[in-house]
Amino acid sequence: MQVSLIRYTPEPELTVASAARLCYSQISATQLQEKLTPTQVESLLRRVISSGHHSVLEHASFTFAIDGISRACSHQLVRHRLASYSQQSQRYVSYKAPDFVTPPSVADDPELSRQFEQAVLAAFAQYRGLVEAGVPVEDARYLLPNATTTRLVMTMNARELMHTCSIRLCVRAQWEIREIFEAIKEEVKKVAPIIGGALQIKCIIHDYCDETESCGIRPLKDES
Amino acid sequence: MQVSLIRYTPEPELTVASAARLCYSQISATQLQEKLTPTQVESLLRRVISSGHHSVLEHASFTFAIDGISRACSHQLVRHRLASYSQQSQRYVSYKAPDFVTPPSVADDPELSRQFEQAVLAAFAQYRGLVEAGVPVEDARYLLPNATTTRLVMTMNARELMHTCSIRLCVRAQWEIREIFEAIKEEVKKVAPIIGGALQIKCIIHDYCDETESCGIRPLKDES
Amino acid sequence: MQVSLIRYTPEPELTVASAARLCYSQISATQLQEKLTPTQVESLLRRVISSGHHSVLEHASFTFAIDGISRACSHQLVRHRLASYSQQSQRYVSYKAPDFVTPPSVADDPELSRQFEQAVLAAFAQYRGLVEAGVPVEDARYLLPNATTTRLVMTMNARELMHTCSIRLCVRAQWEIREIFEAIKEEVKKVAPIIGGALQIKCIIHDYCDETESCGIRPLKDES
Amino acid sequence: MQVSLIRYTPEPELTVASAARLCYSQISATQLQEKLTPTQVESLLRRVISSGHHSVLEHASFTFAIDGISRACSHQLVRHRLASYSQQSQRYVSYKAPDFVTPPSVADDPELSRQFEQAVLAAFAQYRGLVEAGVPVEDARYLLPNATTTRLVMTMNARELMHTCSIRLCVRAQWEIREIFEAIKEEVKKVAPIIGGALQIKCIIHDYCDETESCGIRPLKDES
Repeated sequence: MQVSLIRYTPEPELTVASAARLCYSQISATQLQEKLTPTQVESLLRRVISSGHHSVLEHASFTFAIDGISRACSHQLVRHRLASYSQQSQRYVSYKAPDFVTPPSVADDPELSRQFEQAVLAAFAQYRGLVEAGVPVEDARYLLPNATTTRLVMTMNARELMHTCSIRLCVRAQWEIREIFEAIKEEVKKVAPIIGGALQIKCIIHDYCDETESCGIRPLKDES
Repeated sequence: MQVSLIRYTPEPELTVASAARLCYSQISATQLQEKLTPTQVESLLRRVISSGHHSVLEHASFTFAIDGISRACSHQLVRHRLASYSQQSQRYVSYKAPDFVTPPSVADDPELSRQFEQAVLAAFAQYRGLVEAGVPVEDARYLLPNATTTRLVMTMNARELMHTCSIRLCVRAQWEIREIFEAIKEEVKKVAPIIGGALQIKCIIHDYCDETESCGIRPLKDES
Repeated sequence: MQVSLIRYTPEPELTVASAARLCYSQISATQLQEKLTPTQVESLLRRVISSGHHSVLEHASFTFAIDGISRACSHQLVRHRLASYSQQSQRYVSYKAPDFVTPPSVADDPELSRQFEQAVLAAFAQYRGLVEAGVPVEDARYLLPNATTTRLVMTMNARELMHTCSIRLCVRAQWEIREIFEAIKEEVKKVAPIIGGALQIKCIIHDYCDETESCGIRPLKDES
Repeated sequence: MQVSLIRYTPEPELTVASAARLCYSQISATQLQEKLTPTQVESLLRRVISSGHHSVLEHASFTFAIDGISRACSHQLVRHRLASYSQQSQRYVSYKAPDFVTPPSVADDPELSRQFEQAVLAAFAQYRGLVEAGVPVEDARYLLPNATTTRLVMTMNARELMHTCSIRLCVRAQWEIREIFEAIKEEVKKVAPIIGGALQIKCIIHDYCDETESCGIRPLKDES
């Protein structure tokens, strides 16, 4: 898996802070940007993040190239609807060589790992067989396994990144999508350290776990 | 595949028509509903649909149970973001018996059909093998093929149904998702005939095809 | 102000509960609806609400007729983007008689109240003057005050109702929009008591106040 | 009114083109960006725009500072829900001096203009009177007219800009919001000429008018 931040709103934290300030101010957005000091930007951002007033975070958006994730994972990822996705199509792209993701629970066991690889290679061979027999690529792909890799470009704003990370950094999320958002968090931190630092599991934000069982990071709500 | 309309806004067409009328009227929504005759409802709805003023169509929403579609298809379906989905989870549901979709291009050829079934059954057997070896279901499923069936509940309002049908009823859409929206159109027609009748391919709405090549239903834009 | 629930998804709580169950089940949505007992529905809903897994709540949607609110208030209301609105247009509807909202802080003082009414009536008279002089209604309305009443139809699903109420029932929200959501909560409770009961201020949900100062219902986060 | 583009996704057209190409390609988003020539970018973008496949346009987003528009206009503007807004609050900002918008239909007539200004100034004076009498600013503002100016920061992606311009550049839109989107179009053209050029009225896009009466730019659908 490779996750790279390929585009983002320039000066994302100043952008958010000046939008936040505008709501309570009599001067224009353009003037605000010139006047805010780094200390004011930080203080405004911290206040925005700790309160529930997150809409100003939407003015900063981030575009990621995500390569080499499984289709099992991409199916989960695109369920987050407040984002934009462009994904490599299995209808139009015909796979020559098998490229796939092996889950750690399988990869850690040499025998299971061998069986897994064999099964995936067999599926790819059957897929190629159908394509060569004249079946349209979009139909032959019905044999491709969830493990098959895909790539996509995803754009998400800082508010939705906060929401998505709050769910997908949780240990209850599957390992693969958790890896994506851990990588995203690191990428965002490089260019927007305060926003990046705010990409946290929901239990850390609320100081309690709202799941049925706690992993231990924070206690269940009733017990907190 | 089975598509059933399980819930919808009661009196969907009266709801939309009275919301449309409210915008240009001095009486209340409640009074409007009592006063509008069936002829007025029809005339208001036809005007709303033929113009671009579709927002009032959002007040009528429709909930479908969709059973027995492939995961290839559900991955396409959930890309429509202005809708709500609850889908059977491959992380938590462990499949005992294989249940899968065979594309017509394969099913029409007995030999290909046999190969396809064999490949799917082999994949399921490998999946079961991993589960029995202690691999978590959420990881074992990486071997499951796109052909594996899934089920979901989808809620979409009439405006988004119009938009989605305009794309997914087109011959360029894959056969399986086209079947879903053809079934949806029939279901909607039973309870909201004017709205159902407005679920049309984009080329029929605009009187030209905006794709690179036309299938013949309507000419390309430059040639119309 | 008058807020009436004019439409809603039939059996909203059974709808949500069966969608929630579907995710973890091998039987179809249609079968689920027949099998769930009222006790199971309640238990599923409570679990959905207390956890963060709110997407299933989107399958139940509610349509309200809202009459006699000020344009100050409607401008706030339509900022909630995950909902559908049809609002009486000031561009097309020409006001004959003044109809307006007086804030309690003014209404409680007879002298201020008299000044307020006089100012509004003067504005309406100037508006009528412009219309009679041939100024288009859409331009003459630039003189109408924020106090002028409007009416609208709003459709919002249960998930967004939970989110919006969490903000707008807070004492920091302005009195008029708070009244709307208090009325909405009462309306929803009549037909969906568990969902209605879950329409709560954010501080009650999280057990702490995330604003700068607490009103006393719950302590600030650091002090909790 | 002043509309300035204050932030945008760097290289917006290359971003969109490489996302479009990714869907049909076997190489990564990062590699695509290096490989696409300006001619390819233009050709990909033109194809995206003329077809209905607009989702890739969402990866380019644009943030505008909009100053000096009326609250009548901002109430219309924020009805476009697929965008982010931060608006100067009339609840927290107390207006000292009157600042307002005069519609051209009034401004063109000296006598009407004088009446209009007088009415607005009277309303402001009453507003100040209430504030000085201790009425909260958020309630005193009920006397402020629609003409009162406001300012906001708005972020919208290129897909939604296309949709919004298709409606708001139409002669049926009110003059003030049309001015905003004409200014937006000019701003976008400076940094993304192909996208800016695609910001067109719906009748120009479809080659027919879908309103009840045509202004003459394009004929009604039945007559085209």
